[in-house]
Amino acid sequence: MEKDYTEFFHHKRVLITGGLGFLGSTLALKLVACGAQVTLLDGLIEDLGANFFNIEPIKDEVEIVIAHLSDRAATDYHVQDKDLIFNIGMHSSHLDSMKRPLYDLETNIIPQLQFLESIRYNNPEAMVLYVGSRAQFGKVKKFPINENTPLAPADIYAAGKQLVEYYHFLYQDICGLRPISLRLGNTYGPRHQMKHAKYGVQNYLIRLALDGEQIQVFGEGQQLREMIFVDDVIDALLLLVMNEQTIGHYYCIGVDEKISFLELVKTIISVCGNGSYQHVPWPEERKVIEVGDVQTDFSKLSNLTDWKPTTPLREGLRRTADFYKQYKSYYW
Amino acid sequence: MEKDYTEFFHHKRVLITGGLGFLGSTLALKLVACGAQVTLLDGLIEDLGANFFNIEPIKDEVEIVIAHLSDRAATDYHVQDKDLIFNIGMHSSHLDSMKRPLYDLETNIIPQLQFLESIRYNNPEAMVLYVGSRAQFGKVKKFPINENTPLAPADIYAAGKQLVEYYHFLYQDICGLRPISLRLGNTYGPRHQMKHAKYGVQNYLIRLALDGEQIQVFGEGQQLREMIFVDDVIDALLLLVMNEQTIGHYYCIGVDEKISFLELVKTIISVCGNGSYQHVPWPEERKVIEVGDVQTDFSKLSNLTDWKPTTPLREGLRRTADFYKQYKSYYW
Repeated sequence: MEKDYTEFFHHKRVLITGGLGFLGSTLALKLVACGAQVTLLDGLIEDLGANFFNIEPIKDEVEIVIAHLSDRAATDYHVQDKDLIFNIGMHSSHLDSMKRPLYDLETNIIPQLQFLESIRYNNPEAMVLYVGSRAQFGKVKKFPINENTPLAPADIYAAGKQLVEYYHFLYQDICGLRPISLRLGNTYGPRHQMKHAKYGVQNYLIRLALDGEQIQVFGEGQQLREMIFVDDVIDALLLLVMNEQTIGHYYCIGVDEKISFLELVKTIISVCGNGSYQHVPWPEERKVIEVGDVQTDFSKLSNLTDWKPTTPLREGLRRTADFYKQYKSYYW
Repeated sequence: MEKDYTEFFHHKRVLITGGLGFLGSTLALKLVACGAQVTLLDGLIEDLGANFFNIEPIKDEVEIVIAHLSDRAATDYHVQDKDLIFNIGMHSSHLDSMKRPLYDLETNIIPQLQFLESIRYNNPEAMVLYVGSRAQFGKVKKFPINENTPLAPADIYAAGKQLVEYYHFLYQDICGLRPISLRLGNTYGPRHQMKHAKYGVQNYLIRLALDGEQIQVFGEGQQLREMIFVDDVIDALLLLVMNEQTIGHYYCIGVDEKISFLELVKTIISVCGNGSYQHVPWPEERKVIEVGDVQTDFSKLSNLTDWKPTTPLREGLRRTADFYKQYKSYYW
């Protein structure tokens, strides 16, 4: 049964950073359907997920601001009077961050701190939901992962995500900000960018399968993955901001259904009705940042918000494949 | 008995960032005495601890480079061919970092990443000792603090120190860097800057006492402190880089002698033979970033390097007070 969020979000003024990207646009579609007044901020940074087609169904019902997070003129104005800020706009490339650490700093860290300063002086007690990353945990020694798991970020990107999460919580002391962080794992679904594999390799597998390409499975492919369908993530984002008790804390999210990477590839090929795979050795650059199995205990989130994942993997993959078959020209 | 490091450090080429500051200059004095070839890099950043008088006794025996850590022309040239790099140059102001988070980013984080990039392309497998901070642990729930204590940085400065530590260890994967981190606590001694209380409040107390001023004790002053004499810290820095087994790890440092802040103030007044104190309420800005008691288990460091603190507090304070009485005009 689909949840009804209208009562809470009707007429709420909401700012979404990274608003034209995968998560931002999917969230916007949901919020507009609930009657929220939505502003999308996006810097259209090359290679990231911004795509105007993502918001085609609501383009006349949202305010679109094209500006960098570091543009204080834009952010000072647009953070004012917002009831909620969903802070999603960052790159998420593990590999690139190791090749170009300064790119990571310039794209993820500096603009985020400038954005927080903008909020501090223009809407200091805003509720801000920050989308963190499971990667902040890095190479985990004991499963399942939960909020007490020690941090060991395995790449520059993950270390930066952690710093920006620290920043959000420290602004609670600095100016009374009301921050929440959701440490997101592998999310898939419609509206993800499909031009390259740098962000969200799992989504790119769907493109490879649809194109009838051969998918490479590094090593045996037995590492466990949790695949969360984007609509379930949006539910979590909405439920978190509806509950004041969530403020000042970070949350893990996952699914009960674990799947090996190899099985995931086979399922994608089956659902797409196309594609093939072969095993290849691990490339060195991947091995270094590979974090191994993923198994998450998301009971803190569930207990506080009643959230649970509702979309079985096969159904989510089918909906994703259907979307891209229909709108391929906008994403390929 | 003083340790003899000459055999190891003789003719070693050493770069010290923050080389004109408190730790950097004290380390340089020791290394020069051991016959090392020392290069001091310092950006002379306003309010930080650089002081040419610190290196007066060795000024003709070291190479002095005045440049920012972010100046790739300078660092690319000077990191080459170094056997060891002691990376000390950062600000350490907890309060300022909360008032001006962007200053922290610009002074501590961006230049540090640029410096690591410089090493990557000019001396990728350098041994780099990074001086981290006890503040990375923040508000600790369980004592003693050791290397397994969860991190909870209580201010922007501490969060940034943690990121830069992560960066150092990630460069082990990126280019084969050989990093070590020492998470330093309250260090006192000669050559600390004495112009303001922003970095190392304990050192500033000595100035207040010598000047016959009244020292403010916030609240009861019962929070426990560990005061490490600078020469003991220098021993730890030297021992860590003499042992290849230390590479890739971070270490806590402390002293067995714990003292309440109030007792510390009384001891300083007694040793200096001047000054007084009064209790005042905690200022709000201090309360937020105050981390409570400090009790450190430094057995990992001791077991690996045989390091132990050798200077009793009263003796260290006496040597510090004597130094500043003699050279007051260079520090006040």
